[in-house]
Amino acid sequence: MSEQNYSLQEAILYSHKMAQLSKAVWKQIEKDWQNWVKPFDLNLNEHHILWICYHLDGASISEISKFGIMHVSTAFNFSKKLEERKLLTFSKREEDKRNTYIELTESGKHLFEETMEAHAQGTDKNTVMQASLPLKDLYGRFPEFQELEAIVKEIYGEEYLDILDRSIASIKAEY
Amino acid sequence: MSEQNYSLQEAILYSHKMAQLSKAVWKQIEKDWQNWVKPFDLNLNEHHILWICYHLDGASISEISKFGIMHVSTAFNFSKKLEERKLLTFSKREEDKRNTYIELTESGKHLFEETMEAHAQGTDKNTVMQASLPLKDLYGRFPEFQELEAIVKEIYGEEYLDILDRSIASIKAEY
Repeated sequence: MSEQNYSLQEAILYSHKMAQLSKAVWKQIEKDWQNWVKPFDLNLNEHHILWICYHLDGASISEISKFGIMHVSTAFNFSKKLEERKLLTFSKREEDKRNTYIELTESGKHLFEETMEAHAQGTDKNTVMQASLPLKDLYGRFPEFQELEAIVKEIYGEEYLDILDRSIASIKAEY
Repeated sequence: MSEQNYSLQEAILYSHKMAQLSKAVWKQIEKDWQNWVKPFDLNLNEHHILWICYHLDGASISEISKFGIMHVSTAFNFSKKLEERKLLTFSKREEDKRNTYIELTESGKHLFEETMEAHAQGTDKNTVMQASLPLKDLYGRFPEFQELEAIVKEIYGEEYLDILDRSIASIKAEY
């Protein structure tokens, strides 16, 4: 890692721009996501848990916390609520007794699939995706954001991108 | 805007990746920002209000709401708290009686400058900036994220980037 290989002005300008752009994009995604899953009586965290478990074919609380970027207690509490609704089950694994694993029930899988159905019917409400179409028209594909990936890898570790790759592979197999 | 010029798979993959990357980056920025301004008895929204007023040399509540990506009532309520601490003042302008304008007091400016001083002393705690240094080493400068800018412009309008440019110009003049 470079030691002070930057001026204070560069650092402030860059941080300011990153804060403004990432807040703008994330807040819009958050808003759309909430609107999308609300009719299913789910909040964003609950849907994110279903999403992760569905695409990773079961996950531990710590994987959900890491990949979902939510506190372990948040991951646990919302999973608990979904368990009460019989959408998932908790279990321990023989080879790893310390972690709690989560698996979707049939009705959990079904509900998740219904949300994806609703998304497919309403991609016009996906603001960030819609706002990216001019770039797609220009490039022939959606932007890749490899620099953003590199930054996320530095912060969250290789593992984060590995889980992202696994969930992307699962989506590719599905749709 | 293109009409369905994308497959469902592309749309889901892209949205998923954008959600994961922007959540990851924004949550880290949020955490660092909170830690940074906490010693000054400020929360992120309050500091963002000071930031915007300082660099735009006064701003209306609606500008703060727009550029700070916070609800108008959030912008107003936190501004009110800062006013109670005598860090800013509310006023109306002769040419625009409908909007409430905010200006930092001397002690507001001073407090903001102190927070920037603390940031300058602790850039090692700015995780996203640090995590971007390998890219800076590679390119000779921090990444520009022009695609992200284009997306934000589509969503929030030209005005958002204009305000960003104004605040960037002010930072350049300052440091």
